[in-house]
Amino acid sequence: MKYCANCGATLARRVPPGDSLLRDVCDACGSIHYVNPKMVLGAIPVWEEGGQARMLLCRRAIEPRYGYWTLPAGFMENDETAGEAAVRETLEEAGARIELQGAFSMISVPRVNQVHVFYRARLLDLDFRPGVETIEIALFEEERLPWKDIAFRTVALTLKRWYADRAKGAFGFHAEDLK
Amino acid sequence: MKYCANCGATLARRVPPGDSLLRDVCDACGSIHYVNPKMVLGAIPVWEEGGQARMLLCRRAIEPRYGYWTLPAGFMENDETAGEAAVRETLEEAGARIELQGAFSMISVPRVNQVHVFYRARLLDLDFRPGVETIEIALFEEERLPWKDIAFRTVALTLKRWYADRAKGAFGFHAEDLK
Repeated sequence: MKYCANCGATLARRVPPGDSLLRDVCDACGSIHYVNPKMVLGAIPVWEEGGQARMLLCRRAIEPRYGYWTLPAGFMENDETAGEAAVRETLEEAGARIELQGAFSMISVPRVNQVHVFYRARLLDLDFRPGVETIEIALFEEERLPWKDIAFRTVALTLKRWYADRAKGAFGFHAEDLK
Repeated sequence: MKYCANCGATLARRVPPGDSLLRDVCDACGSIHYVNPKMVLGAIPVWEEGGQARMLLCRRAIEPRYGYWTLPAGFMENDETAGEAAVRETLEEAGARIELQGAFSMISVPRVNQVHVFYRARLLDLDFRPGVETIEIALFEEERLPWKDIAFRTVALTLKRWYADRAKGAFGFHAEDLK
């Protein structure tokens, strides 16, 4: 950030009065440009049939992690709720319709200034198709899950917690950090 | 947002190729300036003694909602985790040391593009004092809680859920929306 988004003047980097952190400050118009962590929202879309849970994963058609498998997820937008973001991302990336069943994980990743939140979800039908950011979609039984080819640590951790909770017969909420 | 933070040129507002939402786009350098919801992190600091829970609330010394009562909370910063933000805000606003006990509520407020997250917390001692954004601090028993003078709807909802869960003897996680 070099120029003031409000007036176009060159920004200075310093601690404003009453603050304790370095900020991008505009001496021309007085604006302080705060930068905060972004939320990534996703779903854990599951198709249950005959006591078997099949997990919907998307193979990424974009960088980072092209070709690796992920849960549908992406940046939460203004004017939507966290749940709406999870439903929208699942529709955009997998063309899949889901019903949310509750928030499941919230994982802070301070290295990239993100917080990843995943909701448990029931897949409403099998009429999905890859969106533009997805190469292919597949439903995995637990023993066939591509653990070595999962795109992101937050997705792998969320999947691990999901299978552990399912084995216990009770889904909790998991607030964790990945540093 | 009127000027490009990267090059200082005037921004255009339109939907970039492959996107579906209006963004602030720079035709000079190609930057796209995304704006996403911000996270507000807070704590529910409780002093337990003799089977009685006393809730720490701060009376706000700043706008918005000057003079009203709130749980300690504020914008999550880059380079910290959600839990670290809750601990930091409690120290800044109330001078209070806490031990986190688990994430308790996550409330989307799309009207202001925020997501408020509160952690349950144990107050470690009674040696607190108001920070610069706080007029006074008090510990409230449930029957004396100033319900009509709570600063924010997310705080009132979080307190309501907390007392209901305590009465049930089991604390859950509450993902909700306030529109």
